[in-house]
Amino acid sequence: MIQIGLDDLDDIALGATFLGTGGGGDPYIATLMTRRAIESHGPVSMLSLDEVSDDALVFACGNMGAPTVAIEKIMAAEQPPAAVLALEAYLGRPADVLMAFEAGGSNSMMPIYNAAMLGKPMLDADGMGRAFPEMQMVTFSVYGVSGSPFALASEHGETVILNIEDDKRAEYIGRGIVIRMGARSAKASYPMDGKTARRVAIPGTTSLCQAIGANLRASRARRRDPFAALIEMLAGTHYGHAKVLFTGKVTDLIRETRDGWAIGKVVIADPAGETLEIEFQNEFLAARQGGRLRAIVPDLICILDSEMAEPITTERLRYGQRVTVMAVSAPPIMRTDAALAVFGPAGFRMDEAFVPVEKLD
Amino acid sequence: MIQIGLDDLDDIALGATFLGTGGGGDPYIATLMTRRAIESHGPVSMLSLDEVSDDALVFACGNMGAPTVAIEKIMAAEQPPAAVLALEAYLGRPADVLMAFEAGGSNSMMPIYNAAMLGKPMLDADGMGRAFPEMQMVTFSVYGVSGSPFALASEHGETVILNIEDDKRAEYIGRGIVIRMGARSAKASYPMDGKTARRVAIPGTTSLCQAIGANLRASRARRRDPFAALIEMLAGTHYGHAKVLFTGKVTDLIRETRDGWAIGKVVIADPAGETLEIEFQNEFLAARQGGRLRAIVPDLICILDSEMAEPITTERLRYGQRVTVMAVSAPPIMRTDAALAVFGPAGFRMDEAFVPVEKLD
Repeated sequence: MIQIGLDDLDDIALGATFLGTGGGGDPYIATLMTRRAIESHGPVSMLSLDEVSDDALVFACGNMGAPTVAIEKIMAAEQPPAAVLALEAYLGRPADVLMAFEAGGSNSMMPIYNAAMLGKPMLDADGMGRAFPEMQMVTFSVYGVSGSPFALASEHGETVILNIEDDKRAEYIGRGIVIRMGARSAKASYPMDGKTARRVAIPGTTSLCQAIGANLRASRARRRDPFAALIEMLAGTHYGHAKVLFTGKVTDLIRETRDGWAIGKVVIADPAGETLEIEFQNEFLAARQGGRLRAIVPDLICILDSEMAEPITTERLRYGQRVTVMAVSAPPIMRTDAALAVFGPAGFRMDEAFVPVEKLD
Repeated sequence: MIQIGLDDLDDIALGATFLGTGGGGDPYIATLMTRRAIESHGPVSMLSLDEVSDDALVFACGNMGAPTVAIEKIMAAEQPPAAVLALEAYLGRPADVLMAFEAGGSNSMMPIYNAAMLGKPMLDADGMGRAFPEMQMVTFSVYGVSGSPFALASEHGETVILNIEDDKRAEYIGRGIVIRMGARSAKASYPMDGKTARRVAIPGTTSLCQAIGANLRASRARRRDPFAALIEMLAGTHYGHAKVLFTGKVTDLIRETRDGWAIGKVVIADPAGETLEIEFQNEFLAARQGGRLRAIVPDLICILDSEMAEPITTERLRYGQRVTVMAVSAPPIMRTDAALAVFGPAGFRMDEAFVPVEKLD
């Protein structure tokens, strides 16, 4: 068990933006809220999956909504805990441990925030290992844990409990509620016991965020090559393989907001005239160089600015930015056939088969 | 206590269409379902408000959705009880008695159906005394009973429990769920005790439906003036005043589906060249003759075909129909200032003040 304190938050936020692979929402506001919660209530205890007891009740928590709204409408302080409390009341039992369902982007902060506010420990694990746009795109669902019952809470203290067997339908109906709650709801979902969490969750993703953030920050301080340092660090994790796919300048950008998503593609060109084209739906989904596949979901595609190695989200992409594109292999639990059916290329209506990034040149 | 059996259903359905004031949905499908439920499970016991015990747990049940969908997509037999069962599970206590929230239109049948399916008695009362388009437009809400917690159930056995303090917000967020459930959800709402129901519910509205239906049917059989007979019958109820507003032919009809409602107006002309114009939003809201107000919500405006005295719903209005327009005074519990604020003219964004129909020529 380790403690998450004020000094850890910026590194976690920076690493979470990297794992957000262009999406997941800017963690800035959530980090401010979490800072305040820790100032008031003290640091948060974080357990590893090995440390959680078999029968501990675990909730996966975070927010559901449009990231574009999140940066303009700050949540009420009581909104995220309200979802946890509503699910506890419904189940007639308090949650013992909170974890993230999405370690990438702003949802990386929410279990820390909720744990601080509610005086509970959190779990160093999540269900996406990165960011994904829909609630069924989690290893929990892939390996047989139901998202239901789950709770949504509005900024007005309104709560809704959903019991929907199919997690994709739960996403659809839940999204309808979120829209009418003002495109920003707090969520507590996928109740499971500790033994199950050990089987279905992606281990160590909050501490991975922190390690990535610390690594990038140390590179800046020491003026070393941040990309090489990060590749070396990731080689020692269960993500394993990372590489620089491409370095160049943003020369074209098509981006539209459709059905609540940021959908489009960005083209990056290098001085030799080579181009890399990256498709996105909130997150970067596939990178192709002259028609040749270089990386595809669920492997991580991350765009960083070449100078400061700052991860760039889809909404912050601009013509003329000088960027370095990295790809990271997803951990094995995210690459099984069952997982690929949900959040591999097929999950995003792409025809091509998944090919691991380490097998692509 | 009386028994509702197979022979009562057609009269209740006919009277409910009259009380539907043009809206509330055609009770045809709901009546078929209820017939089958009573054939399988036997007749339903109906208590009056005087007979329900103070501490009995009462749920107001029915469906929420678009009537146009209801006639094309028949509900699953288990869908309406699923909402009742979900609310019972949430409250940790079975409902003792079921009542309608809306006696007008197809929702007149749902407490009978649910009571038959679940082996419970029903209450001879409702919250609208007619049909209204939104869930907060009930005397329960007007007199301080919260719609929450309430349950919605889909045809797939999916259930949602909502806790939303403001009933108008509950309508808004609930409607969002209903749309994603396929525009047809079963609902159990406004949990209250028997003592409260006596204070806030409109008494006798299921038996009133039955009496209206029986009266219209008897007039047809005996070839007497159905309108005069109905006016005489209603004079003996707490609705009290009824009259024929106008007799003529439909000469103009503007009807559009907007935000899920049937919105428009119908113009009826008589041989003397006089015209009556009736505005509607699902239900008939206001009748004006040459600019002069003749009747306005919550008083009931009903259009019947002149020959058979069959109530005509907004979606069945046609050019050239020969119709008789009746107006009925709403009972006193629906005409207080508090009630008028919710479902009087202001509740439908009309500027004019409510004037009782008996004070209008």
